[in-house]
Amino acid sequence: MNEKMNRLRRLINQVQDLHGAAAVLGWDQQTCMPPGGAAARAEQLGTLQELAHKFFTSPEVGALLDSLADHAKELDPDSDDACLLRVLARNYAKKTRVPSSLVAEIARTSAAAEHVWEQARAASDFTMFSPHLEKLVSLMRDYSACFKPFAHPYDPLLDDYESGLNTESVRKVFEGLRPRQVELIRKIASRPQLSDEFMNGDFDAQKQLEFGSMVISKFGYDWQRGRQDRSAHPFTSTLGFGDVRITTRVMPRRLDSALFSSMHEAGHALYEQGMSQSLMRTPLADGASLGVHESQSRLWENIVGRSKPFWKHFLPHLKEAFPQLSGIGLDDFYRGINKVQPSLIRVESDEATYNLHVMLRFELEIALIEGTLNVAELPEAWNAKMSEYLGLEPGNDAEGVLQDVHWAAGLFGYFPTYALGNLLASQIWQCAGRELHNLPGQIANGEFSELREWLREKIHRHGAKYEPSVLVRRLAGADLSPEPYLRYLNDKYGEIYGL
Amino acid sequence: MNEKMNRLRRLINQVQDLHGAAAVLGWDQQTCMPPGGAAARAEQLGTLQELAHKFFTSPEVGALLDSLADHAKELDPDSDDACLLRVLARNYAKKTRVPSSLVAEIARTSAAAEHVWEQARAASDFTMFSPHLEKLVSLMRDYSACFKPFAHPYDPLLDDYESGLNTESVRKVFEGLRPRQVELIRKIASRPQLSDEFMNGDFDAQKQLEFGSMVISKFGYDWQRGRQDRSAHPFTSTLGFGDVRITTRVMPRRLDSALFSSMHEAGHALYEQGMSQSLMRTPLADGASLGVHESQSRLWENIVGRSKPFWKHFLPHLKEAFPQLSGIGLDDFYRGINKVQPSLIRVESDEATYNLHVMLRFELEIALIEGTLNVAELPEAWNAKMSEYLGLEPGNDAEGVLQDVHWAAGLFGYFPTYALGNLLASQIWQCAGRELHNLPGQIANGEFSELREWLREKIHRHGAKYEPSVLVRRLAGADLSPEPYLRYLNDKYGEIYGL
Repeated sequence: MNEKMNRLRRLINQVQDLHGAAAVLGWDQQTCMPPGGAAARAEQLGTLQELAHKFFTSPEVGALLDSLADHAKELDPDSDDACLLRVLARNYAKKTRVPSSLVAEIARTSAAAEHVWEQARAASDFTMFSPHLEKLVSLMRDYSACFKPFAHPYDPLLDDYESGLNTESVRKVFEGLRPRQVELIRKIASRPQLSDEFMNGDFDAQKQLEFGSMVISKFGYDWQRGRQDRSAHPFTSTLGFGDVRITTRVMPRRLDSALFSSMHEAGHALYEQGMSQSLMRTPLADGASLGVHESQSRLWENIVGRSKPFWKHFLPHLKEAFPQLSGIGLDDFYRGINKVQPSLIRVESDEATYNLHVMLRFELEIALIEGTLNVAELPEAWNAKMSEYLGLEPGNDAEGVLQDVHWAAGLFGYFPTYALGNLLASQIWQCAGRELHNLPGQIANGEFSELREWLREKIHRHGAKYEPSVLVRRLAGADLSPEPYLRYLNDKYGEIYGL
Repeated sequence: MNEKMNRLRRLINQVQDLHGAAAVLGWDQQTCMPPGGAAARAEQLGTLQELAHKFFTSPEVGALLDSLADHAKELDPDSDDACLLRVLARNYAKKTRVPSSLVAEIARTSAAAEHVWEQARAASDFTMFSPHLEKLVSLMRDYSACFKPFAHPYDPLLDDYESGLNTESVRKVFEGLRPRQVELIRKIASRPQLSDEFMNGDFDAQKQLEFGSMVISKFGYDWQRGRQDRSAHPFTSTLGFGDVRITTRVMPRRLDSALFSSMHEAGHALYEQGMSQSLMRTPLADGASLGVHESQSRLWENIVGRSKPFWKHFLPHLKEAFPQLSGIGLDDFYRGINKVQPSLIRVESDEATYNLHVMLRFELEIALIEGTLNVAELPEAWNAKMSEYLGLEPGNDAEGVLQDVHWAAGLFGYFPTYALGNLLASQIWQCAGRELHNLPGQIANGEFSELREWLREKIHRHGAKYEPSVLVRRLAGADLSPEPYLRYLNDKYGEIYGL
C-alpha cells in the first residue's frame, strides 16, 4: 500500500507543480507581462492546463485510487493520507465524468465570450454579448447533465465551488435572509444619511500602500512568503507553497479603496500562508471552498477592519500619514466607513447590501440553467430584481447585467460563495468571541496574533482536508447559519444609524 | 507528410511551451519571488524540465523525425520546415544519446555544487569546493564519452553552446589572438594612464534607469514586447514570443554599471525581439549560438556604446541628467569610458583584456577534461596564467579560481563563446560598415534604425535556422576570423593611448 500511495503522491505532486507553474504565469500576466506576451502566454497556459488535466485523469491515477480505496477506510479519517484519498477520489470522479471535448469547448467559448463581454460592456450593449451567453448557458447545461441524476441541474455547478452544498439548501438560506436584509436597508434609508466625504481628497499613493502594508503586517501577513503588487483588479494568488502574493489597486483621490482591498486580500493570504506544510504539492493545500476562503477575507476586511476598536488603534496612525484627516473624530470616521448606500455595482457595495447583489445573480443563473429564463429576457429580469431588492434602476447594461465577468468566464455557481462567505465570517467571529478573551480589547490594542493563531488552528492549517460543512461543524458545533450574520448586521447598523 | 509534420510541430510546440513556462518561473525567481517560495519553485522547475525532456526524447518524436528524413531533403533548405527538421534531428540525436540517469546526476550534482560554491567563494576557500568540482569534471567526462568517437573530449561540450565548432579550430583562433592581445596590453601599460574618475559620484538610481531606457529605446528595444527590472546579475530572458525582458543592476555611486549593462542586455534582446514570428513555439526561436548572441550584446554595448560618435550625440543628454558632468569634454569622456586596466575579475574587465580571461578558462577546462590537470592543481595553474597573460596575481581564491559560477553550474564549454562573440561582433560591424552609408554619422545623430534593421535582416529574423558558421558565411562571405577584431582593437586603442 505504501508503495502505491507513494506513486500516487508523486503523480499528484507533478499535477500540482503544473498548477503552481500556471499560477506563476497567471500572476505575471496580471502584474508584469508586456502586451506583446499575450499570445505566447495563452499557449503556455493552455499547455499546462491540458497536461495537468491529462495527468490527473490518467487511468493510472484511477487504478491507484481504486486499489487504495480499502486502505483509505483503515486510516485515521483526520490523517493527511485519508483526506487526500477522499479529495482525489471525489475530484477524479468529477473530472473523468466530463468528456474532454466538452471541457475544451467550454474553455474556447468562454475565452471568446470574455473578449466580447469586454467590448459589450464598453459599448453597454447586451445584444453583442447575448449569443455568447446563450452558447455558454447551453454548455453549462451539458456540463451539468454529465452528473445526472441530480436533484437540480444547478447542483453540479455549485458543487464545483462549494463542495457538498446543494441548490435547495442555499435557496433556503437566502430566502430566510433576503426579506430581513431588505427590511434593514429600508430602515436605514429612512434615517439621515452619514458622510464619508473625508475619504475623498488627495492621498499620496505610496503612503496609502505603506499604511496598508503596516496594517496587514500587524495582521500577520508574512512578507518572507509573499509580496504585494498593483493590478487592475485586486487578487490573491498562491504561486507555490510559501509564496502567497496579493495585489491591490490604489486611487490617489480616494482613501478606502487600497486600504480595505489590502485587508481583504490579506485575509485570503493568511488562510493560504497558514496551511500545514505537510499539504504541500497536493490539492489539500487549498481552501476548503470558495465560501470558506471568502469568510477569511470578509472577516479581516469588514468585521475587524471596519470595527470601532480597530480604528481606535489605527485612526491616530492614519492621521499621522494623512494630516488632512486630523479634524475627524473616531465616531464620525467609524460611521463614515460604514455608510450604507445601495449601489448598482456589486463590487462597490457595502456590507449591508452586498448579499442582495449575490442573491439576484443566484436566482437569475438558476433560472437560466433551469431554462425558465431566456438569455434575451435577462436584462429586464435583472433590472426588475435590482429595483425590488435595492430600489435602484440601472441606466444601461454596463451598470446592470454586463457588470461582472463571471458568466462570460463560464463561472456559473460561483456567486453564492460570496454571500456564504459573509454568513460564515460572522459565525466564525461569534465562535472566536466566545473562545478568545476580550477580542475587541485586543483589537483596540492593535493585537491580532491570538485571533490569527486561533483561525490558523481551527481553519487555515487544515487546508482542504475537510468538506466545508464538516469544517464548520468542527469549529462552530453547528451547521452554517445566517443568524450570527443577521445579528451582526442589526447590532452594527442599529447602533450606527440609531434604528 | 503534412500530417506527420503537423503532428511533430504540435509535440514540439508543447515542449517549447514548457520551456517558456520555465523561463517565466526563472525570471520571477530572480526578480520577484519572496524567499519562502524557493522550495516549491525548485520542484515546479524540476517538473517542467523533466516533462520537456521526456516529451522531446519520446519515441514518437524519434519516429516522426525518421519518417520525415527523406521529406526534409526535398524541401527548400532555407525553409522553416527544413531548418526545423535539421535542428530537431540534431538535438534529438544528442539528447537521446545521454542516459537520463546521467542527466539527473549532473543536475543534482551541479545544484549542490552551486550551493557549496557560493559558500566557498564567500570563505575564499577552494578546498571546500574542490570535491564537488572533481565530481563534476568526472561527470562531464562521462557526458562527453556518450558522443564517442570524437577528435577531442571537449568537442561535445563546446558543441552544446556553439553548434558545429570544434576544440581544434577554437584553439587555433585563440592561439593566433593571444600573443597579439598580450602585446597590445603591454604597449598600453607603457603609456600614461587615463582617468575615469568622473564615473564616481552621486548618481540618482532612478535617473540612471531613465537614461538607460532612453538610450535602448533609441536602439529600438520594444517596450510593448519587453520590460526592464532590477536583479543581482543583469540578464535577458525570453518568457515567450513577444515577451523579451531585460534586467540591470544600478550602483548609485557609479555611473557606468547600469548604463552599459542596459546596452548589453538590449543587444541580446534586440536579437530575440527581431526573430520571425513564424518561428514561434519552436526551438528555432532562439539564437544561432551563444557566440552569435554575445556578438549582438557586445556590438551594442562596446562597438556602438563606447564609440565617440555615440557620445557625441548622448553626452549632452547625459550632462542634462547629471549636471555634475558638465565640465567633462567629449574626448576625456570617451577616453575615460575606454580606459584599459587589467583586472583580476572577468566581469569587470575592459574590451582589450576581456578575451584573455576567457582564454585562460578555456585552456584550463580543456586540461581538466583531458585529465592533464587535476582539480587540486587548478588554483596554482589559474594564478600562473593570470600572471602570464595579465600580469596580475590573485590575492585569494575568491578573486581567482572561484570567481565564476559556470563550472559549479556544470557549464563546461561555455566560456569560449564570450570571446567568439567579441570576434564576431567586429566582423559583423565591418560588414555593416561596408553595406550601410555613413554608419558613424548615423550614430552621431542618434540614428540606429538602419543598423538595427540590417542586423535583423542578416541575423535576428533567422533565429536558430542556420548553424553559426553558415550564418557567418551568408553574412560576411567568409569564415569567422579574428582579424577584424584585432584591427578594431588596434585602431581604437592606438588612437586613445597614442600608440
